[in-house]
Amino acid sequence: MKAAVILVEPEYQINIGFVARVMKNFGASELILVNPPDIGGEAYKFAVHARDILENAKTVESLEDALAMLDLAVGTTAIAGKNYIVERAPLKPGELKEKLKGYPGKVGLFFGRESRGLDNRELELMDLTVTIPTSEAYPTMNLSHAVAVILYELRREEHSEVKHSLEPATWKEKDNLVKLWGELLEVLDYPRDPIRRKYFRTIFRRFLGRSFLYGREAHSLAGPLRKAVEELRRCKNVER
Amino acid sequence: MKAAVILVEPEYQINIGFVARVMKNFGASELILVNPPDIGGEAYKFAVHARDILENAKTVESLEDALAMLDLAVGTTAIAGKNYIVERAPLKPGELKEKLKGYPGKVGLFFGRESRGLDNRELELMDLTVTIPTSEAYPTMNLSHAVAVILYELRREEHSEVKHSLEPATWKEKDNLVKLWGELLEVLDYPRDPIRRKYFRTIFRRFLGRSFLYGREAHSLAGPLRKAVEELRRCKNVER
Repeated sequence: MKAAVILVEPEYQINIGFVARVMKNFGASELILVNPPDIGGEAYKFAVHARDILENAKTVESLEDALAMLDLAVGTTAIAGKNYIVERAPLKPGELKEKLKGYPGKVGLFFGRESRGLDNRELELMDLTVTIPTSEAYPTMNLSHAVAVILYELRREEHSEVKHSLEPATWKEKDNLVKLWGELLEVLDYPRDPIRRKYFRTIFRRFLGRSFLYGREAHSLAGPLRKAVEELRRCKNVER
Repeated sequence: MKAAVILVEPEYQINIGFVARVMKNFGASELILVNPPDIGGEAYKFAVHARDILENAKTVESLEDALAMLDLAVGTTAIAGKNYIVERAPLKPGELKEKLKGYPGKVGLFFGRESRGLDNRELELMDLTVTIPTSEAYPTMNLSHAVAVILYELRREEHSEVKHSLEPATWKEKDNLVKLWGELLEVLDYPRDPIRRKYFRTIFRRFLGRSFLYGREAHSLAGPLRKAVEELRRCKNVER
């Protein structure tokens, strides 16, 4: 999916800079500004390493100019209590993500003014509207925060950089740990009551089961347990 | 789920203000600041209608003071390249959301300094770590944007919490287990390399964090570990 971010009459350079930054964080690059203020040092300061996005931003004079550059227009709105004049109920970001899955065209994500968002005329021109679920106590998000959440949602699952090569521990590996724990309890003769020892063993298994143990972790837990059991056994023999 | 947001040595008032605002947007209210700068007009300006969150923020002098107020510590990190080691295998925000579903304890979401995040010592103290998937071209998000994304994710599709009478292990109880595990490794002199011993200790902490241990379970794990350490120490003294 190709998506552009369109800021409609943004008021503060700081927000324009922050939007550029979060776009770059999420791999978006096309920024369109409808009647922005002059872009100067403050916007660049808050863009930090997303200077290129600001430099390449397109400036247009009307919402219609921006719409002409896109295939699908998505307007964002804050939860506005009961004053909804928009015909269609807005989607939640996750629903938008679903809708856009596999969409081959160019999507424009429209964000309104800091002070009053997109107006009703503008919202009527949108193909879809989306609202981030927020607290009724304070529904109005900062512009760049709203962009952050929408881009995060649209990119989720596409970005799988947080993958690693760790294999989960097998049942056998976990069972081996439970056995070692049981042997430790035996050699310590702790707790004294064999029924409680069994119970302690079971607790250990449940607890392992609930954790996402990796194979390498199982290995690093097994080593010390095995060594502890061996040394304690040897020690008890010496004392006998 | 009860969640507090902890900012560790935040550097800029603007971000503290923005964090308070987005917390209120998503219905979070408890803000803990570790060694913050003086909070003045600029923070309040960017908090806008979240003044109450700033006013009620707790200030503490160390990470440990914050940890003592929580049951589960979640540390946020930026993507750290491809050399993931096991203690750094972070969850994605959606995985964190799944993990925390029904968790009855108090969760602390830790965010590091704007300039360099949480350091290794701090990350080692976390039960879990989470990373927002971002573009490799610019992985470092603004602090308040990161908070926005995490809180958005944790709030999506709020599920009713499964309640039961078991108390989750506190961070202190888990820390006690980590210490005992460390002592066991020391008395066993295993692994031989102290750096690897430290690594084994950290693995143990991560694994405890992911398992959502209950207080009673922590107790049943601590007993045998303590006894093993004591007996091994006694044994080594006898042999001397």
